[in-house]
Amino acid sequence: MSGRFITLEGGEGSGKSTQIRALAAALEARGVDVVTTREPGGSTGAEAIRTLLMEGADDRWNARAEALLFAAARADHVARTIRPAIARGAWVLCDRFVDSSRAYQGGGGGLTDADILALHRVGSEGLLPDRTFLLTVSAGEAAHRLSVRDAGGADRMGSKPADYQARLAARFAEMAAAEPARWRVIDADGAKETVTAAILAALADFLP
Amino acid sequence: MSGRFITLEGGEGSGKSTQIRALAAALEARGVDVVTTREPGGSTGAEAIRTLLMEGADDRWNARAEALLFAAARADHVARTIRPAIARGAWVLCDRFVDSSRAYQGGGGGLTDADILALHRVGSEGLLPDRTFLLTVSAGEAAHRLSVRDAGGADRMGSKPADYQARLAARFAEMAAAEPARWRVIDADGAKETVTAAILAALADFLP
Repeated sequence: MSGRFITLEGGEGSGKSTQIRALAAALEARGVDVVTTREPGGSTGAEAIRTLLMEGADDRWNARAEALLFAAARADHVARTIRPAIARGAWVLCDRFVDSSRAYQGGGGGLTDADILALHRVGSEGLLPDRTFLLTVSAGEAAHRLSVRDAGGADRMGSKPADYQARLAARFAEMAAAEPARWRVIDADGAKETVTAAILAALADFLP
Repeated sequence: MSGRFITLEGGEGSGKSTQIRALAAALEARGVDVVTTREPGGSTGAEAIRTLLMEGADDRWNARAEALLFAAARADHVARTIRPAIARGAWVLCDRFVDSSRAYQGGGGGLTDADILALHRVGSEGLLPDRTFLLTVSAGEAAHRLSVRDAGGADRMGSKPADYQARLAARFAEMAAAEPARWRVIDADGAKETVTAAILAALADFLP
């Protein structure tokens, strides 16, 4: 079977990590060699950069340095984890990828979407997923899910106000609409099993 | 007095740090507010990134991740140290800057000079020095200076073979020739005082 690169995107509380686990189990049951990973991080070097990104004061990095650090972590993750796994025929399921940088860093601090894509071209030779799922949830459902999460302590990427989440959701929707061959938008408000089934159905063309 | 941004470039053993100290003393004697700094590093965030760059195995980072980490460190250094100092009217003397990335990273690992400049545009809004000095030394003199340096232990950026140093020298000479308004090439084989005098003479147009 050919290797595949599949990413899940969406705001906080959209259920990405839950769905990655469920999807991995469902694919493994079909005999697929699955590698699950997440950004920032996913390789030894990228995890070291992740520590720099997540720790410290809110203003530890300006937008430009932060975007470069995310791109550096991604370059290491792509070279050391993602490309080798795809090359051996595995399916890589990744929780966030360059589209998160585009959504979170590409519209503020003087940086544009083209800037983020330029960094991705230099860092990761512009690698894009074969398919990207945007998990959309209503604001109320996202807030509920976040409130029941274990309080693991805030980090620099922690929760932001509701209007910020709304702008983010609009940005993701815009990217999905601009590149329909790669993106699939999944309503993730429903039961976990319903969402997993919808994702699997949208991967049918990749399955033998 | 207007702030100025002056960088020193050249291979190992070309005397950059010695000349920065001598130049700072000479400018301070003329009443100039001087800030000396060096790359990678020069600000709190950049020093943390420097640690990632200098420590670990030779192959810890691939060329792409390494170029992004240098650009991230530079973005922090520019935003937190260099631009504020220039804005208050100081002269910033910096040991290595983006031209070192162009010379060391811009010609290998699949990266071009245009790639390094693209990262610099995103990270540091393309800030270039008002004047850049290329200190050139003969291979014999560089080897002699390095042999008498305190052996502080090798790091990932440590000494490379002679043919590598020769390619590097050619790359620096090429950049200097391409942008003569910014660059001054200084023969740094001679006595320390002679070299300092040559650099000061080439800054006369900036001095009151």
